[in-house]
Amino acid sequence: MKKGLMLIISGPAGSGKGTVNKHLLATGDFVYSVSATTRAPRPEDTNGVTYHFISREDFLSRIESGGMLEYTEYCGNFYGTPRKEAEEVLASGKNLILEIEVDGAQQVKKKYPEAILIMLLPPSFKVQERRLRDRGTETEEKILERLARTREELKTVDAYDYVVYNYDGRDKEAAQQILAIVSAKNSSIERNPSVMEKYFAD
Amino acid sequence: MKKGLMLIISGPAGSGKGTVNKHLLATGDFVYSVSATTRAPRPEDTNGVTYHFISREDFLSRIESGGMLEYTEYCGNFYGTPRKEAEEVLASGKNLILEIEVDGAQQVKKKYPEAILIMLLPPSFKVQERRLRDRGTETEEKILERLARTREELKTVDAYDYVVYNYDGRDKEAAQQILAIVSAKNSSIERNPSVMEKYFAD
Repeated sequence: MKKGLMLIISGPAGSGKGTVNKHLLATGDFVYSVSATTRAPRPEDTNGVTYHFISREDFLSRIESGGMLEYTEYCGNFYGTPRKEAEEVLASGKNLILEIEVDGAQQVKKKYPEAILIMLLPPSFKVQERRLRDRGTETEEKILERLARTREELKTVDAYDYVVYNYDGRDKEAAQQILAIVSAKNSSIERNPSVMEKYFAD
Repeated sequence: MKKGLMLIISGPAGSGKGTVNKHLLATGDFVYSVSATTRAPRPEDTNGVTYHFISREDFLSRIESGGMLEYTEYCGNFYGTPRKEAEEVLASGKNLILEIEVDGAQQVKKKYPEAILIMLLPPSFKVQERRLRDRGTETEEKILERLARTREELKTVDAYDYVVYNYDGRDKEAAQQILAIVSAKNSSIERNPSVMEKYFAD
């Protein structure tokens, strides 16, 4: 059985990452990576589902021992991707989805060069802006903050392997596009060692 | 409009190249590259369809001027892929299929590094052998000759970008697999220059 692929899916607010990832998970071939954090659980949290809640001590020792594929500190709490869980998923043959930000993506790529970096984008900044306003769930200040961050997030886009556009009402197509990337990767010569030996052996 | 992709599809006898290519051509996004040759036309030939029939002088001068992406000499006649026709197809935005052998594939890759090299294979040598016998159109000698050539053809498989298996009765899936390769390539960052500029410009 082939090892699964590690997919890093980044995208600014309004790119529709959540919906596209749901389509991928629905195929049964993908597992969503659950981050570890040192922040205190909230009532809506479920340990192991929303996050793996671990102690600061545990988190720091995991960083030390290379047990975090990437991590960041935010408002005094650590957030990161545990390497062990990721490797277990890949060994099972399932593909792993890491929904992480551009900085974390670069950290993972260094530790795990086979990772596939995908930037999911709204068709344009104008559309992104409209989507965030149409949600109607956030303050104007928050919306402007998110929009301002987009420019920063796109600065490293050239370090990504793929760009997938998520057009209005076409989130299934965006997911299909990601499935095509996975499918192509699985046909690549790197993913098919000893073609000749296997061909004549069978 | 994006330039089309150049696809080199190689595969031993019995791999089902013809059928798979027909599925690709049926999408309307692909054009089949017609080879040039110096051999005399036969009654069943149509100039520009089965081959471009050109003089030996013309062929040699095209080799000289870099006008052949690849060529070979066989039984005293030249066969090759004219560069000009290939470039016209790619410029039109269509993808070009070159159904050529492993040696020609390497020649093209040197001149045109963006070419995507795909090896189409039966699931195994046993299946290949059965397919060739089931055809019932060739002498035993010819069949053995074709089978013997397979080992030679697979020697360079590691220089290919992709391996696609064509299972019995699943030629449409093999074509889909090639479409996924094309689709993934079109989402690659190399095929999407200036993502950021376009994102904010629109």
